[in-house]
Amino acid sequence: MEYYPGTGRNHLFVPGPSNIPEKVQQAMARNNEDHRSPAFPKFSKSLLEDVKQIFKSKISTSFIFPSTGTGAWEISLTNTLSPGDKILTFRSGQFGVLWIRMMQRLKLDVDVVDSEWGTGVDLGILKKKLDEDSDFAIKALCIIHNETSTGVTNDLAAIRGILDAYKHPALLLVDGISSIGALDFRMDEWKVDVAITGSQKALGLPTGLGIVCASPKAIEASKTSKSIRAYFDWADYLEFYKVGSYWPYTPSGQLLYGLRAALDLILEEGVDNVIKRHHRLGHATRLAVRAWGLQLCTKKEEWYSDTVTAVRVPSHINSGDVVRLAWKKYDLSLGVGLNEVAGKVFRIGHLGFINELQVLAALVGVEMTLRDVGYPVKLGSGVAAAAAYLQHSTPFIASRL
Amino acid sequence: MEYYPGTGRNHLFVPGPSNIPEKVQQAMARNNEDHRSPAFPKFSKSLLEDVKQIFKSKISTSFIFPSTGTGAWEISLTNTLSPGDKILTFRSGQFGVLWIRMMQRLKLDVDVVDSEWGTGVDLGILKKKLDEDSDFAIKALCIIHNETSTGVTNDLAAIRGILDAYKHPALLLVDGISSIGALDFRMDEWKVDVAITGSQKALGLPTGLGIVCASPKAIEASKTSKSIRAYFDWADYLEFYKVGSYWPYTPSGQLLYGLRAALDLILEEGVDNVIKRHHRLGHATRLAVRAWGLQLCTKKEEWYSDTVTAVRVPSHINSGDVVRLAWKKYDLSLGVGLNEVAGKVFRIGHLGFINELQVLAALVGVEMTLRDVGYPVKLGSGVAAAAAYLQHSTPFIASRL
Amino acid sequence: MEYYPGTGRNHLFVPGPSNIPEKVQQAMARNNEDHRSPAFPKFSKSLLEDVKQIFKSKISTSFIFPSTGTGAWEISLTNTLSPGDKILTFRSGQFGVLWIRMMQRLKLDVDVVDSEWGTGVDLGILKKKLDEDSDFAIKALCIIHNETSTGVTNDLAAIRGILDAYKHPALLLVDGISSIGALDFRMDEWKVDVAITGSQKALGLPTGLGIVCASPKAIEASKTSKSIRAYFDWADYLEFYKVGSYWPYTPSGQLLYGLRAALDLILEEGVDNVIKRHHRLGHATRLAVRAWGLQLCTKKEEWYSDTVTAVRVPSHINSGDVVRLAWKKYDLSLGVGLNEVAGKVFRIGHLGFINELQVLAALVGVEMTLRDVGYPVKLGSGVAAAAAYLQHSTPFIASRL
Amino acid sequence: MEYYPGTGRNHLFVPGPSNIPEKVQQAMARNNEDHRSPAFPKFSKSLLEDVKQIFKSKISTSFIFPSTGTGAWEISLTNTLSPGDKILTFRSGQFGVLWIRMMQRLKLDVDVVDSEWGTGVDLGILKKKLDEDSDFAIKALCIIHNETSTGVTNDLAAIRGILDAYKHPALLLVDGISSIGALDFRMDEWKVDVAITGSQKALGLPTGLGIVCASPKAIEASKTSKSIRAYFDWADYLEFYKVGSYWPYTPSGQLLYGLRAALDLILEEGVDNVIKRHHRLGHATRLAVRAWGLQLCTKKEEWYSDTVTAVRVPSHINSGDVVRLAWKKYDLSLGVGLNEVAGKVFRIGHLGFINELQVLAALVGVEMTLRDVGYPVKLGSGVAAAAAYLQHSTPFIASRL
Repeated sequence: MEYYPGTGRNHLFVPGPSNIPEKVQQAMARNNEDHRSPAFPKFSKSLLEDVKQIFKSKISTSFIFPSTGTGAWEISLTNTLSPGDKILTFRSGQFGVLWIRMMQRLKLDVDVVDSEWGTGVDLGILKKKLDEDSDFAIKALCIIHNETSTGVTNDLAAIRGILDAYKHPALLLVDGISSIGALDFRMDEWKVDVAITGSQKALGLPTGLGIVCASPKAIEASKTSKSIRAYFDWADYLEFYKVGSYWPYTPSGQLLYGLRAALDLILEEGVDNVIKRHHRLGHATRLAVRAWGLQLCTKKEEWYSDTVTAVRVPSHINSGDVVRLAWKKYDLSLGVGLNEVAGKVFRIGHLGFINELQVLAALVGVEMTLRDVGYPVKLGSGVAAAAAYLQHSTPFIASRL
Repeated sequence: MEYYPGTGRNHLFVPGPSNIPEKVQQAMARNNEDHRSPAFPKFSKSLLEDVKQIFKSKISTSFIFPSTGTGAWEISLTNTLSPGDKILTFRSGQFGVLWIRMMQRLKLDVDVVDSEWGTGVDLGILKKKLDEDSDFAIKALCIIHNETSTGVTNDLAAIRGILDAYKHPALLLVDGISSIGALDFRMDEWKVDVAITGSQKALGLPTGLGIVCASPKAIEASKTSKSIRAYFDWADYLEFYKVGSYWPYTPSGQLLYGLRAALDLILEEGVDNVIKRHHRLGHATRLAVRAWGLQLCTKKEEWYSDTVTAVRVPSHINSGDVVRLAWKKYDLSLGVGLNEVAGKVFRIGHLGFINELQVLAALVGVEMTLRDVGYPVKLGSGVAAAAAYLQHSTPFIASRL
Repeated sequence: MEYYPGTGRNHLFVPGPSNIPEKVQQAMARNNEDHRSPAFPKFSKSLLEDVKQIFKSKISTSFIFPSTGTGAWEISLTNTLSPGDKILTFRSGQFGVLWIRMMQRLKLDVDVVDSEWGTGVDLGILKKKLDEDSDFAIKALCIIHNETSTGVTNDLAAIRGILDAYKHPALLLVDGISSIGALDFRMDEWKVDVAITGSQKALGLPTGLGIVCASPKAIEASKTSKSIRAYFDWADYLEFYKVGSYWPYTPSGQLLYGLRAALDLILEEGVDNVIKRHHRLGHATRLAVRAWGLQLCTKKEEWYSDTVTAVRVPSHINSGDVVRLAWKKYDLSLGVGLNEVAGKVFRIGHLGFINELQVLAALVGVEMTLRDVGYPVKLGSGVAAAAAYLQHSTPFIASRL
Repeated sequence: MEYYPGTGRNHLFVPGPSNIPEKVQQAMARNNEDHRSPAFPKFSKSLLEDVKQIFKSKISTSFIFPSTGTGAWEISLTNTLSPGDKILTFRSGQFGVLWIRMMQRLKLDVDVVDSEWGTGVDLGILKKKLDEDSDFAIKALCIIHNETSTGVTNDLAAIRGILDAYKHPALLLVDGISSIGALDFRMDEWKVDVAITGSQKALGLPTGLGIVCASPKAIEASKTSKSIRAYFDWADYLEFYKVGSYWPYTPSGQLLYGLRAALDLILEEGVDNVIKRHHRLGHATRLAVRAWGLQLCTKKEEWYSDTVTAVRVPSHINSGDVVRLAWKKYDLSLGVGLNEVAGKVFRIGHLGFINELQVLAALVGVEMTLRDVGYPVKLGSGVAAAAAYLQHSTPFIASRL
């Protein structure tokens, strides 16, 4: 049997893949087509242009690879760096662990700053590292904008400010997989050199697209980068951009039409309204957690994430039980704790095309599940805290005014 | 513009049309086909057979008309009765009003028992009417099993018991539009002669099928019924059943495949489990209403409906405002109050393929909306009451044990 | 098992249901919604307005019933006529047979002019009948624009001309089920009083909508019509048009969105271009039939239908074998011969959203099947004749110029 | 505008992406889900197992990467080889050109045997190369089973025979992108070490999956391969196979469900019946080409491809005009000539879920287009030749017997 059906809707609150809107589903329900037909370049061009709006970038070049976020990590590294290049990065969550493992496999010389899971980039250490790097040996600074495993959002503006203060020429490579299209992201303003995201997060698509924006500086760097790359070489894309056929190999047609629909929805709502909505939903979720008397995995408010909330469970409870039971009884899909926080943390994803009542449903589900596993939360407590905030902050749906 | 989009899922809690499950959507996503091909009769036969399971009937004959519940009303009347025939029925809600209006247009001699909206069939009056009908002038007793406008479920077993006590030969025609497939319905045991439902209610399909089951007695009656009928004449269907091609005119192919998928889901869950689930969701909703300090439109517990809850608002509030605001702000679709209870009642539909968290989301939405319109409900109060009950009563999803 | 799968596409060439375009499929792939929401009236209004364009009518009122073409027949009759009213009509095909049977059931006084199957309305007889009707006893003239069982299109302009010449006040009721949206149809110019079509023909939708346009004269007539009607009473619709909520009972939402998409496609192509395309495809099909040395069921060129071609097989062949074998071997769905022409005729439907190569595929399939059943057609003969014509007459696809 | 619509179906006859069957479309029309739920491993396991049936392999290990065929090329090389490794390969078509370009980028030491486009692997040269390689310096032999740009199928059994005759230990890496699932492919029997395909070819899915089977010998080789790899490292997959969660990063859920449906269709038809069907359609196409008096790009019958036919046009005609005009006028999508044969060749893809009449439609379309561009083909000639063969060779559809 292919799946274990429940009745009604699955409540999908993992921090990606996220819920696919009906309009996106419709756009993808189409036969294959000849991507070499005269119709395809025009479509492709507008898509590559419009996707940059969620990066808030005008000067970068965008690429859409048939890949995932993991592939996009590789794209960001191999196109800009050479084996042996020194890079500085931070590790305090599972996606940091995995990206760094990739950097090492790619023979990059990674200087890893470890810190407690649930913390973000330590700006003091960053400064210290730059202090020590007066000869600019560091070729790239790699930052995960939003660490999905711990619910930590880093302050890119501050990081850019520090780099600027040091007049440091390092490339700024940013994993925006669980942020771009949901959190405030300003590629041009923050002088991010490579920013990446994946289709199954804020964009509400199936998995399968790795979306990459590269600054002119990153494009320039790629010309001398010696990392071996083939499938993931953006130079091939650039060549096909020049001749106007856009795709060096067969693109994922259906996903591109889905992306078109997703962008249309985002642009109709307004990128900044989308960001505000994510803040509302994130804040409401955190209010609920506080009402339950539980701690966030995230150590400080400055790092609170508006796309995912990682919740610590009391030590006598296994967070894996929470996730399993929520799925088995309420058809609620939560994120498990990964690696160091396995068993200690469960995660509520609240990104993509979702609204207030969807999130409130998840919060009620968590309340019930917590009681089921023996944590004596007061039913209604979290949802009431969240609803009180949302009732006041939620605007009317623009099209229905 | 064709619709006024919100972000994320619309929370559809009108008492029909109900939410379409993904499996049903998939089944309907198909090209047209030749309904005269050798493949179609076999499919049709199994469908006509299996649909009877939600009526709990083995001895009746089923019909699937390209129509709606309103059409099914007409089918039930014109196939069994003749102009001038005396029928007894009850009116205490909008669907009673409409069905009776149809009876009158069809030149039936309707004896209408009016009662307060929110009440069900007065069994005492029924007995009185039968007392007065010693010559069995009443040809049919027409009962709405579940009055969707007021949230009233009538006790068909008791009604049948009374008819039996009088040995009354009247046909028992039952509108099960918002009950069959969701509430306990026992066609054979209760000797219902014609029972009808529509595709967009418990079956979770789009509107477009009027589903009718007729007892042998009803089939017999149709042979002498003098009501004029053409499109809705089940005799044509019976003729095509005999020759094995099943459809006197083009059926709604996609809806039939959708019905197949919906029945498969229901039979997999188990008809009695479906009924229990509806009871859980109905009871939880009523607990929330009580916690809000509001009254049901339904006057007595014996009539409580497990598919729709009609909620009275305080007199200084217009229930239409509740419905409009819920839709405009939370993308929550509630049912308006109709006719006599317009402005006084809003309705929460909880039928079809929905689960606990979906209903709880609606309840939070109602709480927030009530506050928005000025009714000082305590946030979390209703949802907590509902959740407390659901947490204890909800079983694990069978396939996930 | 629900269907008997072949590999690849079924070649659907019955004269309805027709092929559903991808855009229409996408439009229908949506959850149910609240048809009482503030969004629905605006959508409904534009749909009711735009659908009149395929009728070429500005002055009529349109209705969209959850029903089929058969239901639309009933609507046209019961809304405008009273039992006992005299109507004149013609019978030379199966849909004539069925509509007349309905007229009789509805207690109308039908004067039927029979003629050989494959002929159209005998204008001489029509004149004779009108000659004999100097007191205007005839209340309605009922014409099937395109008789789907024999491939006969009647000349409505000529018929209107005759009525005008006699200054006859009879209502002109027209079955345009297999014509409107495909053949030239001019409701206002021809002063048609009620024109009907069904969703599964030229509109490329699933079965389930009966679409009706009524002239002001027909609307007027309905005010005094005494036919009993309930579900099919357009007065109820008119009442809801007035209050602006449009639907007296639950409409088929998905089909309405599909209709919107279908109309968009037709209006984008241009109604007159659609008509020209159907003429090209019909003419090409007839050229193939001639090349095969077979006869049309249609007796004279003046009646040739551009939506369906009924082909007579030689007497030693059973046309049912052609249809069965085409389906079993080539996944080609052809129309069977009905009633008087059962076994003698098979039908190629060529209406709706299809293009030249689709029809040519069907023609090759017919050639192969004819050989399979023992008729010695020269392979390639029909398709060559059709292709020779189509090569010269097919325009470039407008959007691809 | 996102696409340039024609009326009716696009006739998709590029050699991939191919037509998506309705059942596959339905299977993919689903929301995202949590790929870490307890339901996913069981589903994944059966899929990984069953996909091997189209490779005719029991002993290999399968991998499904979110990627394309180009990515699968990289997977096959980097997992088994180290920079500097000597590989032998053949180049006589565009996909040879591209794969070799990748090999060189990956720093492999490629010995390229060039031959005329339209020829296959020269077995004599292969022997000569092996003669010269008595010290087994060649680490891998890379073969494109079916060169999509020229319509050339290589004889893998013969190639394996030669390797065996020399007892040569080289890995046999095979690009089966446009063959596996359509042509006879026997991974175990032919001792293929890595075989790859893509989802958008014989499997009738959207682009987005690179499917790879690796022999035990290939898996062994990967343990010492020094090629840098990260996203494409199958060792990560093997690790997750071991722990039973199967996916080192987010898989393309919808495509996996589509793959399940595609495999179900193939297994229902029977792999060998699928292969026979492709042979029928390929042979029929070649008969048509011959009847038109045109030459294949493929030089000898032994290399004829049953998935794609590359047709040479007379020198005064530009094959690009054929492709453009077919698309603009008949909505027929053909493959263009690539690289050396640009302008000289157009291609008819006939792979995946298609049937006889679909291919015949394409053939008529080509005939018409050829006349349109000035080549005096006799209309009906090609299609008649193809139909004559197909009429005799096409079996009844198994489910419809």
